[in-house]
Amino acid sequence: MVEECKPVLNTGLRGLIIASSKISDVRGSEGKLIYRGYLIQDLADKVCFEETAYLLLYEKLPDTDELVAFKEKLKTERHIPQEVIDALKTRPHGALPMDILQAGIGLLAHHDSDVRDQSRDAALRMAIRLIARMPTLLAAWGRIRQGEDVVSPSSDLDHAANFLYMLHGKVPDHEVARFLDTCLVLHAEHSFNASTFAAREVASTKAHMYAAIAAGVGSLSGDLHGGANVRVMEMLKTIGSIENVESFVKKTISEGKKIMGLGHAVYQTDDPRTFILAPMSKRMGERVGETKWYDLSKTLEKVAKAAFKKEKGLDLPVNVDFYSASLYYSIGIPVDFFSPVFAISRVAGWTTHVLEEQFADAAAKPALYRPESKYVGEYCGPDQCEFVTIDKR
Amino acid sequence: MVEECKPVLNTGLRGLIIASSKISDVRGSEGKLIYRGYLIQDLADKVCFEETAYLLLYEKLPDTDELVAFKEKLKTERHIPQEVIDALKTRPHGALPMDILQAGIGLLAHHDSDVRDQSRDAALRMAIRLIARMPTLLAAWGRIRQGEDVVSPSSDLDHAANFLYMLHGKVPDHEVARFLDTCLVLHAEHSFNASTFAAREVASTKAHMYAAIAAGVGSLSGDLHGGANVRVMEMLKTIGSIENVESFVKKTISEGKKIMGLGHAVYQTDDPRTFILAPMSKRMGERVGETKWYDLSKTLEKVAKAAFKKEKGLDLPVNVDFYSASLYYSIGIPVDFFSPVFAISRVAGWTTHVLEEQFADAAAKPALYRPESKYVGEYCGPDQCEFVTIDKR
Repeated sequence: MVEECKPVLNTGLRGLIIASSKISDVRGSEGKLIYRGYLIQDLADKVCFEETAYLLLYEKLPDTDELVAFKEKLKTERHIPQEVIDALKTRPHGALPMDILQAGIGLLAHHDSDVRDQSRDAALRMAIRLIARMPTLLAAWGRIRQGEDVVSPSSDLDHAANFLYMLHGKVPDHEVARFLDTCLVLHAEHSFNASTFAAREVASTKAHMYAAIAAGVGSLSGDLHGGANVRVMEMLKTIGSIENVESFVKKTISEGKKIMGLGHAVYQTDDPRTFILAPMSKRMGERVGETKWYDLSKTLEKVAKAAFKKEKGLDLPVNVDFYSASLYYSIGIPVDFFSPVFAISRVAGWTTHVLEEQFADAAAKPALYRPESKYVGEYCGPDQCEFVTIDKR
Repeated sequence: MVEECKPVLNTGLRGLIIASSKISDVRGSEGKLIYRGYLIQDLADKVCFEETAYLLLYEKLPDTDELVAFKEKLKTERHIPQEVIDALKTRPHGALPMDILQAGIGLLAHHDSDVRDQSRDAALRMAIRLIARMPTLLAAWGRIRQGEDVVSPSSDLDHAANFLYMLHGKVPDHEVARFLDTCLVLHAEHSFNASTFAAREVASTKAHMYAAIAAGVGSLSGDLHGGANVRVMEMLKTIGSIENVESFVKKTISEGKKIMGLGHAVYQTDDPRTFILAPMSKRMGERVGETKWYDLSKTLEKVAKAAFKKEKGLDLPVNVDFYSASLYYSIGIPVDFFSPVFAISRVAGWTTHVLEEQFADAAAKPALYRPESKYVGEYCGPDQCEFVTIDKR
């Protein structure tokens, strides 16, 4: 096991291969992302989110009948209990949407008797419910916090279109819905990132699907993880216009800072999802008559890559957050919903990982994650402290 | 780093020392548990939960003035917003209490503006609030699900007594409160177990305190983790009386099963906390005029240890869950509140770990936890799958 012999103390488990998985493969040096054997490029162009979720959950692409049935199943599971809407209505309108989503997943759990059933079938049913209901939950919150009526899901619409319908209160144009749909396909799965690992970690104790997915959402809510495309958008707004790009990049480099959306922990080349996102961002900008954010992104990519190469000798690959920011913005998704929209896609991957964690073949299945720590407390030197009663401290 | 060179693939990170920590030390072979330099035996006899939480959070035992001020602080932070009570009232009475607790922590986050503040001070304030409010949340649920009025916290009572007061609606006797208080001291911290690791994992993405603690609760809710003392109690009820112990142990061994509460992943000797819990369980049984559960536990411990030694050559150390089950039961804590009561204690440890994860010296601080997985999907042999459109599948 020499290949696994790496420093592990205080390295955040980086580079450590801790589990085998059949779900996805991230080939950083090749710029490839593979879901269950299929290249993301092929999927993005040709399948919808429902087909992707099916592929992840069932380990194969559905045929027409299977896809029809699966879409129907998702449609019937979209509704959330009125009591959950009632609970959301007690929430302060300024709450962080990721916090609403995390709590909301907990609320959904209270209505699902499958939380008491430890079978794989029950876990799969909960997975499908979560995939179906998280968009409803999020859209409901989008309405409630604005003092608007909640829009019930429409069984006439597919997954992405229905989300936009529930959020905006009107049926979206086909192309716009397809753009969001493609985003959901692109973000559905990415192996053992922090949020997926959190979900698996929780699932490893035999906690149920909701408890695990709530942990995933919590992990994704962190600035170092799901918050990145929000910060890309904030950066674009700070730059403001193309003529400021040069000076912004210069300043960023001189201050030793990073450009949001450039650079990645895993990919050494441009993230393959970028090539799909960038043209959609352009087209979407044209549709809404505001190509400024795409143009700014494009220029920033070019200028920053050249400058970091020249000044620092660094190749900066574009990551998935860079063009998704301007795309989401043009679609009319509120900036503070960027991470929650990421979550309603990634829940397909998370739930699949929970299924794998809890029900894969015993040989491939880790026991409950229970690492060790090295105690470095030296409060009384190398010895234990002698206890002193409070009156003598 | 040869000492860290261990198999890591599909081993649940067992035995792997992944981070340094100054918080606690579990010396399994010596049967010692140390919080910030102090032996648990010393703490259990001599300090209260508030003093323990102070020790964990501030790295020293408080003097009298500091303890008075800290208790006062916790008292002022006990109240939970009416909107959270309102949200709890929308919940189905049959929901699992751990699920209520996980969602409830999310609900509390919505009312705390510190979730937007990434400073250590803000994190510490949130930690203190969570330690103060989780008992209020849990007790409120205990009342609501029975259709009873919620009891507001009393500023006349210390932490443990106040919880029992809010749960049962009457001020507990001093000795009973002290027993629960001691349980809270004993369960407050136990290094990198699954729930603590889940909380740290979420915190490592710079997610806020509530998001991390909700993940900890989720992890603790799993049967392999926090559910153990519940299963001890269920086992005691199944056995029913002392004369059935011998046959139960015999049957358990012959079926290759385990006795709940005997055996531990870390301790090779009896868990040091057991020696404190067992006499409390006995005394508490005497107080309520029902020593049956203690007597049954004691006999079971003796018979099972001897039988496993004789039949299997195994030394079975008693773990912390074994006597806490009968103790909690005698105190009048509902069986399905055993894990949540564990959580209102362990939150002191979890929050301390989150502070360490996010704010320890850079040298000792891991980056965001991002392990790798080994892709073993062979859906199209060693190659990628060739994409086939849906009409041709």
